[in-house]
Amino acid sequence: MAPIKKGVLERLNAGEVVIGDGGFVFALEKRGYVKAGPWTPEVTVTHPEAVRQLHREFLRAGANVMQAYTFYASDDKLENRGQTLKITGAQINEAACDLAKQVAGEGDALAAAGVCQTPSYLSCKSETDVKAVFKKQLDVFVKKNVDFLIAEYFEHVEEAVWAVEVLKTSGKPVAASMCIGPEGDMHGVPAGECAVRLVKAGAQIVGVNCHFDPMTCVKAVKLMKEGVEKAGLKAHYMVQPLAYHVPDSTYLGYTELPEFPFALEPRTVTRWDVHKYAREAYKAGIRFIGGCCGFEPYHIRAVAEELAAERGIMPAGSEKHGMWGAGLEMHTKPWVRARCRREYWENLLPASGRPKCASLSTPESWGVTKGHADLLQHKEATTTQEMKHALEMQKKAKSSG
Amino acid sequence: MAPIKKGVLERLNAGEVVIGDGGFVFALEKRGYVKAGPWTPEVTVTHPEAVRQLHREFLRAGANVMQAYTFYASDDKLENRGQTLKITGAQINEAACDLAKQVAGEGDALAAAGVCQTPSYLSCKSETDVKAVFKKQLDVFVKKNVDFLIAEYFEHVEEAVWAVEVLKTSGKPVAASMCIGPEGDMHGVPAGECAVRLVKAGAQIVGVNCHFDPMTCVKAVKLMKEGVEKAGLKAHYMVQPLAYHVPDSTYLGYTELPEFPFALEPRTVTRWDVHKYAREAYKAGIRFIGGCCGFEPYHIRAVAEELAAERGIMPAGSEKHGMWGAGLEMHTKPWVRARCRREYWENLLPASGRPKCASLSTPESWGVTKGHADLLQHKEATTTQEMKHALEMQKKAKSSG
Amino acid sequence: MAPIKKGVLERLNAGEVVIGDGGFVFALEKRGYVKAGPWTPEVTVTHPEAVRQLHREFLRAGANVMQAYTFYASDDKLENRGQTLKITGAQINEAACDLAKQVAGEGDALAAAGVCQTPSYLSCKSETDVKAVFKKQLDVFVKKNVDFLIAEYFEHVEEAVWAVEVLKTSGKPVAASMCIGPEGDMHGVPAGECAVRLVKAGAQIVGVNCHFDPMTCVKAVKLMKEGVEKAGLKAHYMVQPLAYHVPDSTYLGYTELPEFPFALEPRTVTRWDVHKYAREAYKAGIRFIGGCCGFEPYHIRAVAEELAAERGIMPAGSEKHGMWGAGLEMHTKPWVRARCRREYWENLLPASGRPKCASLSTPESWGVTKGHADLLQHKEATTTQEMKHALEMQKKAKSSG
Amino acid sequence: MAPIKKGVLERLNAGEVVIGDGGFVFALEKRGYVKAGPWTPEVTVTHPEAVRQLHREFLRAGANVMQAYTFYASDDKLENRGQTLKITGAQINEAACDLAKQVAGEGDALAAAGVCQTPSYLSCKSETDVKAVFKKQLDVFVKKNVDFLIAEYFEHVEEAVWAVEVLKTSGKPVAASMCIGPEGDMHGVPAGECAVRLVKAGAQIVGVNCHFDPMTCVKAVKLMKEGVEKAGLKAHYMVQPLAYHVPDSTYLGYTELPEFPFALEPRTVTRWDVHKYAREAYKAGIRFIGGCCGFEPYHIRAVAEELAAERGIMPAGSEKHGMWGAGLEMHTKPWVRARCRREYWENLLPASGRPKCASLSTPESWGVTKGHADLLQHKEATTTQEMKHALEMQKKAKSSG
Repeated sequence: MAPIKKGVLERLNAGEVVIGDGGFVFALEKRGYVKAGPWTPEVTVTHPEAVRQLHREFLRAGANVMQAYTFYASDDKLENRGQTLKITGAQINEAACDLAKQVAGEGDALAAAGVCQTPSYLSCKSETDVKAVFKKQLDVFVKKNVDFLIAEYFEHVEEAVWAVEVLKTSGKPVAASMCIGPEGDMHGVPAGECAVRLVKAGAQIVGVNCHFDPMTCVKAVKLMKEGVEKAGLKAHYMVQPLAYHVPDSTYLGYTELPEFPFALEPRTVTRWDVHKYAREAYKAGIRFIGGCCGFEPYHIRAVAEELAAERGIMPAGSEKHGMWGAGLEMHTKPWVRARCRREYWENLLPASGRPKCASLSTPESWGVTKGHADLLQHKEATTTQEMKHALEMQKKAKSSG
Repeated sequence: MAPIKKGVLERLNAGEVVIGDGGFVFALEKRGYVKAGPWTPEVTVTHPEAVRQLHREFLRAGANVMQAYTFYASDDKLENRGQTLKITGAQINEAACDLAKQVAGEGDALAAAGVCQTPSYLSCKSETDVKAVFKKQLDVFVKKNVDFLIAEYFEHVEEAVWAVEVLKTSGKPVAASMCIGPEGDMHGVPAGECAVRLVKAGAQIVGVNCHFDPMTCVKAVKLMKEGVEKAGLKAHYMVQPLAYHVPDSTYLGYTELPEFPFALEPRTVTRWDVHKYAREAYKAGIRFIGGCCGFEPYHIRAVAEELAAERGIMPAGSEKHGMWGAGLEMHTKPWVRARCRREYWENLLPASGRPKCASLSTPESWGVTKGHADLLQHKEATTTQEMKHALEMQKKAKSSG
Repeated sequence: MAPIKKGVLERLNAGEVVIGDGGFVFALEKRGYVKAGPWTPEVTVTHPEAVRQLHREFLRAGANVMQAYTFYASDDKLENRGQTLKITGAQINEAACDLAKQVAGEGDALAAAGVCQTPSYLSCKSETDVKAVFKKQLDVFVKKNVDFLIAEYFEHVEEAVWAVEVLKTSGKPVAASMCIGPEGDMHGVPAGECAVRLVKAGAQIVGVNCHFDPMTCVKAVKLMKEGVEKAGLKAHYMVQPLAYHVPDSTYLGYTELPEFPFALEPRTVTRWDVHKYAREAYKAGIRFIGGCCGFEPYHIRAVAEELAAERGIMPAGSEKHGMWGAGLEMHTKPWVRARCRREYWENLLPASGRPKCASLSTPESWGVTKGHADLLQHKEATTTQEMKHALEMQKKAKSSG
Repeated sequence: MAPIKKGVLERLNAGEVVIGDGGFVFALEKRGYVKAGPWTPEVTVTHPEAVRQLHREFLRAGANVMQAYTFYASDDKLENRGQTLKITGAQINEAACDLAKQVAGEGDALAAAGVCQTPSYLSCKSETDVKAVFKKQLDVFVKKNVDFLIAEYFEHVEEAVWAVEVLKTSGKPVAASMCIGPEGDMHGVPAGECAVRLVKAGAQIVGVNCHFDPMTCVKAVKLMKEGVEKAGLKAHYMVQPLAYHVPDSTYLGYTELPEFPFALEPRTVTRWDVHKYAREAYKAGIRFIGGCCGFEPYHIRAVAEELAAERGIMPAGSEKHGMWGAGLEMHTKPWVRARCRREYWENLLPASGRPKCASLSTPESWGVTKGHADLLQHKEATTTQEMKHALEMQKKAKSSG
């Protein structure tokens, strides 16, 4: 019989670092199993071995959390924009929990499952309707008995609070993570205030994920921490940023950048950028540190390597990685061997190899958020009329850039 | 019983496009199974499921060739630079062939196996010694009965010819691919002349792989084709470039760039860059089109999508990818929906998000090649004296940059 | 007898645009008459024809203000850092006023003279001492009877107020311009508050010059205007920015950028950037619009051309310039002729031709201001000890960048 | 009576460095006296003081050659494209010679005058017709008795040879300078071959000017030198490049770059770039070293400062410039004082301050040269039909870029 693992709160209460995993949506899109646009996770049912392999890579990289791949696995999302629902949300959520639990059992990791923002909320459905969507997912998570729950990728604190309220009914630990930056949520609620509301709703861990680059996300969580402490409350903090440099995004995050989602490659962070991020997050008092879109297993390994001394453990995957490039000592070319050291990589400013591209873009800020007609979601395919309108808006955004 | 597949030469003789796979070394380094520096493929023995999964992703992306992961799997390389040989070359090569054959059997793909440049050659061993290294690997490939053979990643045509001569003894089709650019091999032999020698040695397919970016590699293969045709010979052509933009590399290729191997991220090509590359390669008369380091499954899928009309088939993986971004029609945000079309992605110049980085680097051109003391390979670990010399050379290269 | 010209306040009260001139210090440094480092204007005495020519070029470009070249022409500055005082401040100021008045008389321009921040203030001398420095300069300006006075290039509002108080004693109109950005003065006084104090001290025109790029300066003046209006006061507004793009500078301005002062070339604004700046300033309600360091005659002409309709006049220099590049219609090469139109130039994003340079720098923020020992000014040459300290600070700033 | 100066050939024969001046066309365009498009030098007649001042600045910067401002001062050019000829070529050439001779007399400089490529040649006029154009200008130069002659800015060696043949009839020393790069003239004649033809036609000095950046021009002159020496001939060499970085231009030079002529600012070379250029030119055996478009007085001073030891003299203008930034020792801010040394400036990679601009552009290569209908020059204004054609060509060039 396996020894009973410490839960996520026990670990955090003990001051331990909990390493999150990376981004399944983008990683599996590149591997060929997720479709950009709908972004839904049918792959847990259709190609479980691909999902299992990715879980294992993150585990090997040092992750302590196997997050069931349930992102956008709510029925209202699955029906979105002209897709025929062949696989139900329940089927996906069940398969996802099974995979996460299986791999978590292979190492020192916990299985988590989560809900995220819904088309229902964006389309101005009622609190009751939106909560029903979350509840349907929660029922599976409870049945599968995952270790803890995550309400993540919320742009509006109002919806995030609803999600926490639903998840809390399970009695399991709840983490709440918004996809906002230092400027706050889409309705202008400051980051600190968002955190306070989430803690009051019952989240034991709060933070941000996705939408912004690592250092920007750390900055946002710092503001959350300040807000929570100022309010006389207590919480743990988490951060799971993009693996992309997006200093040119506005408060709306990287989806506004012209490169989203198919030309973000030049913005990808290196493992050395991740070292700096992990250190900065740690110094800020954040103890649940992972990644979101763009974070591949080697990025998570870099978090684990940077914090190896603090954690007292090196990840299994480091058998295949020399700290700060030490493995290069065995390279064939002597000039590459000379790069086997921290000072070299820490100070390198990597070139893009693209002299005809700029370093920053102009975001296409349409400036619409929940409540705006352009954001109403529906089951029917995008109409010609809607697309015409979208193209006109695009052209307008460009010319004012 | 499975239908008998057409061989690689039958396909090429019929004018068909043969799509190669991507780069195992870099992909598996990022997934945590290959160590940068030695770069050797023990993973085929230790974690076969990770290799199998990557094969499957390339198959799903449209690849017709499952190349057994035998890169650097020669005993002289495995013993290089202070490593203890726990797993033999024979074990690795056998496991690699098994995996390639298994997955090839799951679709319309052939299993290939290959040899590449050896520490023995760089250390000035005799033709007999070097050929013995190749023969040892070939024995496994013959025993496992792969469909065809590839001599790849050769910097010196002399060694490549030796490899072809050994592989030819098997009676199987032989492809020969050098890691050179338009300026020719490390000893100054022009690309066209290299190709002629390889064809005369018996290679039916010639081309280049690795070291340069897609368009540069196509240029090099064009020179090879011109050379072969001028010599009144006949051959098929192959190209498997880097998935990195490296216009700043010299004839020595990307290992000289300061970013190699741990900060190449900003140079990564997009799927749209791959569309242009696949078209250019096709127009140049190249019919074996794949990728090397940096090519992930989605890059290979882009080759298959660009040439879908010519091949009369879409890859399985395209069920999860709308041509030219068509899937974005189902995205939540209307401004992202407006990006669901070819014109948008074809003309986008992607930003790096790194305003404090330049777009090109200065290569650290030490200007040493086979025969130079700095390139002698040995089994012992790098000495302090050697490393001191390497660091001095690095400093010197920088200040003259 | 010449007709009596309208004064600067009459023009501004009538809602007219008053066009300032460009930067003498930098222009004459490049022409070989001003030494970077001390930056003092002995040239007015030694090579008056060079100064006169530059005045004429600005007049021809459309400037309505001939600003006597009295920048840093206070005796305490002239004695600074080991220079022997061969030419007195009085001599320089007299010659400067003569030149400005002469050229102003050749067209529709007024002669102004000014004072700027002093080493005495930076070295913590008393209000009485600092005011005595200004008074000495003012005596010459009054004797020469220039049309109005400018207190410009002040980093600390306290010293700027002292300057205005001295200049006001003359009874002439006084403009006050600080070298601050939207973040306020060196002691943290907000821009709006600075403006209020200057207006209360008696300045009829307030604004900013130097240190920041055109759009940033406009932003700062907007804050000043908001401050003044909120305080229920009235004033006119002026802006005379750098002709350099310096988005990477902190509140300390461009002297902190590593490129200052000898490698700013790639940052130079084009005439088209100036068109946008002039429009933006006009829209912000600023009516005294000119330039500072880097502004050459063609930049000032661009201000005049952009506002030609509002002013009802084209500058004399436009006989040698087609609006929005119209003169290119007569170029030899047809592809250059095709560039003879606004749409072309307005949307062009000019390349630097330097692929190995980044687009932004890291400022060397030492974070010292008035009151800090490092800023004490003295007559003696910089000592070896001081220079050693400075180099250590430089190294430290770099490594933390 | 003034001592008789050594002639240009005496100086060069003695191994002395002869420093040329900078670019009058661009400098005076920015000062407001030359119109971009026609680019003709009526200013010598209308505003002689502006021309005289620029000559003096170059003299003060160290130039040994006062080149009369006769560029494009041939009657066929003056009549080009709808301009009414108010001032004749003879008037301009006379005034230009007077100004050059006057200022040359004020220091150690020689007066030169020159001819350049003609609309007549581009429009396929006969050798007799083209030579008549040159002869008309030469008559003035002889009458004014300048010290030597320059045939410069020729894209086609055929026309350059005709110019040399005409100038040689005067008995004065003749320098011949083409605006070509390492790839040779517009008809594909290699640089070395161009030089040989010019020397055979009687030029004692050969080289290149304009169209390419400093290092590229030095490379082209090296090829000329190799050609001349290989042919067993003898000559002196000159180089007068652009002060712009244009690595992205093709053999056609900078007019093809989208930034020409009104957005070249970010490409401007620094004084430190000029130091490197002057050294490189000297090392290549070039002894007549100056500048063309973009070269301002401070750039020429940098040539003189770099070669001060070889020449045994510092330019007068260096009284206002500390070698390698030494004058900064007297700057107010201590962090700027720390920049008073060679190592700092020599290694600085200056940022553009434009993160939304790329570092390289795509040239608009229309690929037309002498003989093509698009290049026929005429007196009439550009027709609507012609302009429509030009805009179509521009659009086409862009989409294929």
